[in-house]
Amino acid sequence: MRVTALAGGTGAAKLLRGLAACMHPRDLTVVANTGDDAEIWGLHVSPDLDTLTYALTGRLDLARGWGAADDTFHALAAMGTLGGETWFRLGDRDLATHIFRTRALRAGVTLTGVTGTIGRALGLRIRLLPMSDDPVRTRLQTADGWASFQDYFVRGRARTQVLGIEYAGAEKATAGPAVLDAIHTANAIVVCPSNPVTSIGPILSVPGVREALAQTNAIVLAVSPIVSGAAVSGPAGDLMRACGLPVAPTGVARAYTPWVDLLVIDRGDAGYSHPILELGAEPVVGDILMTDRESEIALARLVLASVA
Amino acid sequence: MRVTALAGGTGAAKLLRGLAACMHPRDLTVVANTGDDAEIWGLHVSPDLDTLTYALTGRLDLARGWGAADDTFHALAAMGTLGGETWFRLGDRDLATHIFRTRALRAGVTLTGVTGTIGRALGLRIRLLPMSDDPVRTRLQTADGWASFQDYFVRGRARTQVLGIEYAGAEKATAGPAVLDAIHTANAIVVCPSNPVTSIGPILSVPGVREALAQTNAIVLAVSPIVSGAAVSGPAGDLMRACGLPVAPTGVARAYTPWVDLLVIDRGDAGYSHPILELGAEPVVGDILMTDRESEIALARLVLASVA
Repeated sequence: MRVTALAGGTGAAKLLRGLAACMHPRDLTVVANTGDDAEIWGLHVSPDLDTLTYALTGRLDLARGWGAADDTFHALAAMGTLGGETWFRLGDRDLATHIFRTRALRAGVTLTGVTGTIGRALGLRIRLLPMSDDPVRTRLQTADGWASFQDYFVRGRARTQVLGIEYAGAEKATAGPAVLDAIHTANAIVVCPSNPVTSIGPILSVPGVREALAQTNAIVLAVSPIVSGAAVSGPAGDLMRACGLPVAPTGVARAYTPWVDLLVIDRGDAGYSHPILELGAEPVVGDILMTDRESEIALARLVLASVA
Repeated sequence: MRVTALAGGTGAAKLLRGLAACMHPRDLTVVANTGDDAEIWGLHVSPDLDTLTYALTGRLDLARGWGAADDTFHALAAMGTLGGETWFRLGDRDLATHIFRTRALRAGVTLTGVTGTIGRALGLRIRLLPMSDDPVRTRLQTADGWASFQDYFVRGRARTQVLGIEYAGAEKATAGPAVLDAIHTANAIVVCPSNPVTSIGPILSVPGVREALAQTNAIVLAVSPIVSGAAVSGPAGDLMRACGLPVAPTGVARAYTPWVDLLVIDRGDAGYSHPILELGAEPVVGDILMTDRESEIALARLVLASVA
């Protein structure tokens, strides 16, 4: 069973940790969102790539859900003294990743290439692919104009009302070299419980990805990031509303139809089963809140059983 | 009394700390060597500028003589895990300086400009000027070919025999915007007890600097970095030999004639007074080993009294 997952950061990392424990990691390919990538201090920061790499190599700070475990913030404090920006909290250990990546990119290595190098160095056993080597940047329209995702989410703490969303650069971007092939040749596609608008949306905006999802022979399963009318974490609710999607499993189904086959929803949302069926997806009801390693594995097992 | 000093790193920092305590810091301009500058991890590292800035703002790690006090090396350890270079030990707090500088340089700010910004942010009260905004790089010829200064000194621990020295880029470089003026308008020039070959030599290699030193009305005083036939610290001895200079106060005098007026030598080297006179410089005998704050101030007082 070869699985290709589409993933954002924190929520995806939990399910992927479960999947990696239930199957041969070599058979798991993850296509990750890079729409949140940002240049911080002149360094190329790829939050989702790093969250996934850290989470799947036991390096993620689990309490924060981002950054390296046991990290310190001495460079950040010194940068503050120098008058540099400190709203994006880069830890000292984490900083090495950004410096390493930035140097490689400046030397002409692709994001896919340096992501592979970092993954191998840290012992990552799954295949992690950026959605594209080209810059695709999620931008959010607010009353103050357009903001980058990090400006909106980290600097602005997701407090501003979002009026519109764009994936800047998408139309000129090319999918990462192995991305479309990973979708076409998988036995199953798993859309992780990530923000449909700012985590999965950017991946879908890359030319060829939606078509590949529609054409692949793989079963396509998505796990809802919405439980009981709210996002499990992050600003998915507000952003779905801004896109005209109901903050409910039906909103997730609408974002992923017509190419999604199965949608895993929470037991408490079982009442949405019929509307989901009407949208063309088959509901799978289960316990989808992942609060510990056991629930990650349990959800991974449900996912694998559903696509088998 | 306006003083302009020519400076390398560690040894210069001690005398400059003394001078800054004995005069109005605003009247002290320091022209610093950038021949040791290196690109490490894709970041622009300026060891002498930083040593001087840290030393004169109470931030230098005094035990090591380089880097920021109480620094940690978590990014370095993480970089090692990633397979990056770790022979040049960049501390976490120190790293912020290199990132800040690199970002400014890439944005088109000059090295002089960003050095001023960093100095102001850290409370540096003297005026610190890079010798040039253009790259001038000290390169050392060994049996294995040409090496950068950091390759020779840090990676190779200064163990390789040096056969030749060049200041690559010097012929095309322009002195920093205030450098020649600072030499012309000072009342006194102080050549700090730095390596004549790899700290002061690069400054002298910048077009116009030697001429300015020869033409200025200021008294030019140098402090010998050589005591009792050896360098007080660092590889100055080996490098002076490689340049055909005796490892003695006379070698220093030869490196700095005909433009040096006074040469401060150690009491134990008083026997060199006559040969120094014959080379055209007037010897000043004193206690030049700076082992604590008091001896730094005592030497600074001797220097200021000699040029008054």
